[in-house]
Amino acid sequence: MNSSCFYCQKDQRLENLMIKISDLHTSTLYLNKDQTHSGRSILALDSHKKELFGLSSSERQFFIEDLSNAAKALQKTFAPQKINYAIYGDVVSHLHVHLVPKYQQGPDWGGAFVHDPAVTKALTEQEYNQLADKIHQHLNLEGVRK
Amino acid sequence: MNSSCFYCQKDQRLENLMIKISDLHTSTLYLNKDQTHSGRSILALDSHKKELFGLSSSERQFFIEDLSNAAKALQKTFAPQKINYAIYGDVVSHLHVHLVPKYQQGPDWGGAFVHDPAVTKALTEQEYNQLADKIHQHLNLEGVRK
Repeated sequence: MNSSCFYCQKDQRLENLMIKISDLHTSTLYLNKDQTHSGRSILALDSHKKELFGLSSSERQFFIEDLSNAAKALQKTFAPQKINYAIYGDVVSHLHVHLVPKYQQGPDWGGAFVHDPAVTKALTEQEYNQLADKIHQHLNLEGVRK
Repeated sequence: MNSSCFYCQKDQRLENLMIKISDLHTSTLYLNKDQTHSGRSILALDSHKKELFGLSSSERQFFIEDLSNAAKALQKTFAPQKINYAIYGDVVSHLHVHLVPKYQQGPDWGGAFVHDPAVTKALTEQEYNQLADKIHQHLNLEGVRK
């Protein structure tokens, strides 16, 4: 737990950027408020670690299963042609993955998605909640006990 | 195995972009010929699969261990301040991860790394081989039997 990290503190800084979809085994899945890419989400590791090799082997294995589970739920919900995954975190180093569904007729197809913290395409709170509910319905939550 | 995929065929198209560092458990690690970000590498899954949820749970677990192993070797070799990881593949959909060491005084610090297939900063063949050897020395190859 890091006192200045918004993924640890889950404070207003986090709420400005994302809304929670679900707890998973060793991580939390959020819907990104910028929906330029329909379904864009963030999977944040629960513990404050910086690099994959800082996790235990067991934690890595739960994390990759959570990531696969989240990606599959996005595929079922939005039927994108491809999902992109990225871990950046030069500045916000708490391990988190951007999950970005890509569409052949949509923005950035064939290249890296634009990564800008600004909320370029915002939805209403009701729309965010509806999307989060749809994704939640497609998650496999067997064994998630948080 | 896909007849038109260069990660499967390991042909000239692949050799133009990267050189092999090592086989790992379920993937192959390559040094990216564009060394704009010193140590930039690619980890390609051995089988031709598109999304993480298309792998078996066992294959995913070997893959995340390979990824962690590769990242740790890059950390030991280049001492970056952060490593970025990205799976794009809208067009070249064979699952592969870009591993991009980032440096506080280097390009793209604090943002997404520029992703352009062109080889912007090339090295000599001798320099590529020296870097690949250094990274190879830092890999944990216990149990790799390919």
